[in-house]
Amino acid sequence: MQRILNDPDNIVDEMLSGFLKANSDIVEATENKRVVKARCKGEGKVGVITGGGSGHKPAFIGYVGENMCDAAAVGEICSSPTAVAFLDAAKCADQGKGVACLYGNYSGDNMNVKMAVKMAQKQGLTIKTVIANDDVASAPKNQREKRRGVAGEIFMWKCGGAKAAMGGSLDEVINAAQKAIDHTRSVGIGLTPCTLPAVGHPNFEIKDGTMEVGIGHHGEPGIEVCELETADKMAKRMTDIILPDYPFEAGDEVAVLISGLGATPVMELYVLYNEVEKLLQEKGIAVYRAYVGNYFTSLDMMGATLTLMKLDEELKELLDMPVNTVGLKQKGKEKG
Amino acid sequence: MQRILNDPDNIVDEMLSGFLKANSDIVEATENKRVVKARCKGEGKVGVITGGGSGHKPAFIGYVGENMCDAAAVGEICSSPTAVAFLDAAKCADQGKGVACLYGNYSGDNMNVKMAVKMAQKQGLTIKTVIANDDVASAPKNQREKRRGVAGEIFMWKCGGAKAAMGGSLDEVINAAQKAIDHTRSVGIGLTPCTLPAVGHPNFEIKDGTMEVGIGHHGEPGIEVCELETADKMAKRMTDIILPDYPFEAGDEVAVLISGLGATPVMELYVLYNEVEKLLQEKGIAVYRAYVGNYFTSLDMMGATLTLMKLDEELKELLDMPVNTVGLKQKGKEKG
Repeated sequence: MQRILNDPDNIVDEMLSGFLKANSDIVEATENKRVVKARCKGEGKVGVITGGGSGHKPAFIGYVGENMCDAAAVGEICSSPTAVAFLDAAKCADQGKGVACLYGNYSGDNMNVKMAVKMAQKQGLTIKTVIANDDVASAPKNQREKRRGVAGEIFMWKCGGAKAAMGGSLDEVINAAQKAIDHTRSVGIGLTPCTLPAVGHPNFEIKDGTMEVGIGHHGEPGIEVCELETADKMAKRMTDIILPDYPFEAGDEVAVLISGLGATPVMELYVLYNEVEKLLQEKGIAVYRAYVGNYFTSLDMMGATLTLMKLDEELKELLDMPVNTVGLKQKGKEKG
Repeated sequence: MQRILNDPDNIVDEMLSGFLKANSDIVEATENKRVVKARCKGEGKVGVITGGGSGHKPAFIGYVGENMCDAAAVGEICSSPTAVAFLDAAKCADQGKGVACLYGNYSGDNMNVKMAVKMAQKQGLTIKTVIANDDVASAPKNQREKRRGVAGEIFMWKCGGAKAAMGGSLDEVINAAQKAIDHTRSVGIGLTPCTLPAVGHPNFEIKDGTMEVGIGHHGEPGIEVCELETADKMAKRMTDIILPDYPFEAGDEVAVLISGLGATPVMELYVLYNEVEKLLQEKGIAVYRAYVGNYFTSLDMMGATLTLMKLDEELKELLDMPVNTVGLKQKGKEKG
């Protein structure tokens, strides 16, 4: 295992310590060492929090900051944060107007968030939730509630965070975040497995010359394993899976997010984007904003995810709001 | 080779096409398809350009944008851009006040920039140059002119670009960029080789369980090959190489940049940063700003570079200026 590590059991502590020191203009530590909060949060607004396992940098802590999440609960590698971490994140974010907890659909996170909501209730703090389920490959369309949350969570945080920053009520923030994820579909292709530092070897296999379509961020099996294809064919395969699912149609405007899974050269993500945009254009779908880079990763996995969000005027306004986090920095809209 | 590619011979064209489409709010194409220019450049200022081989994303085109570079010349993978590309980049950037070409010390780039300068002269356009040579491992201290330019180029572009945006003359921009790189030292450690898409297998070797200290971005040999160490030992080794070279001393303030080489999980870069900052603190050196991420990569190489820039008030002011490029987005200074 060729990696930059000390004791694998301390990796989350050390990563967090480094992250907080390097980004002290944006984030700060809290009393709970598994909770990171934003240095500047808008005054008197609804709190927005998230949380998840480590190993997906910049998710989740990288989306804490101005106009996005106010705090994030941090789990071990590929494990949910504790209920107490979610609760403490909510307490950090609360300004008396309630807290929106926007997170991904994994059993551990579901269980711990539910417990945090109950504990908060007893303390007079209202937490409402949106559960991201944008990963098309993880369950059939008629079982959307079973689908995992993947890179589409970034659009959920962006839109929910923007609504809160605009002064939206808790219900309005929840509705905006729910709308964002409801309009969003993702799919991933894995080219290599990833290695958990504490394990030291990959815990699943992707054979050389093959790729796994629909793979999850933790190596959860996808739709099929097939021969490694060209970037153009991957783009076609990914759009063919995503577009009919919502559906996305001619005349639509979309936001596109292509994220590397950790070990993919960014150059190759642009090769993929090049074809994705062409395929969308051929179908009459216009790209309003694009994000290409390592936005939601899976340790050292090679591969990429494609995420599309269908836009309307409200979602465009929310997406365009400036944001300043470690993982996503954006000025106001200047395009067009 | 598990990669996201079409025909390897077209990778630069396709990458550029995707890059321009995805980032059309920041960059735009030019008549020369190997030159990318900024969409918005400050009015009536000195032009700032760079250029280099492809495969180092976000370098070089990722640093084109507001308050940084006005244009960049694009080479093939690990090859210099042509003299004509450098010249055309300069023409794009010129507003009658001359152009600063800030680039890295590689023989192909040196040759082509020199030719571009001569061609420009004949056309009445003044190009002055700064050649980055921040890579400590590439030659002894008394032969600094032989050293390569690596991730420290980002500080050179940042400071030179800021000076130009502030209305500095060509000589002032050149002096600021030269000062930035003179105050900057870098070193890299490689854990795996990289694979040129057209070759299909690594063109050099780093054996499992070993690491190459001082490796270049194209696999140029470093100072030594040794056993793979912990992150903390790597941090010590890197700071031990960099700190005495300038020298950096107690009481200094520095900017720190840790860049992954393409396939390194960002989490691990933070583990490395955590120890680097601790070691600097122990020596009485304060970190003024830190940058941790994939800022200057080498295809799919695993490993990291450490770059330090010793600051004074002028460099701090230049570093703090807001910037909006694909690779680096920064609001004004809010810290402290």
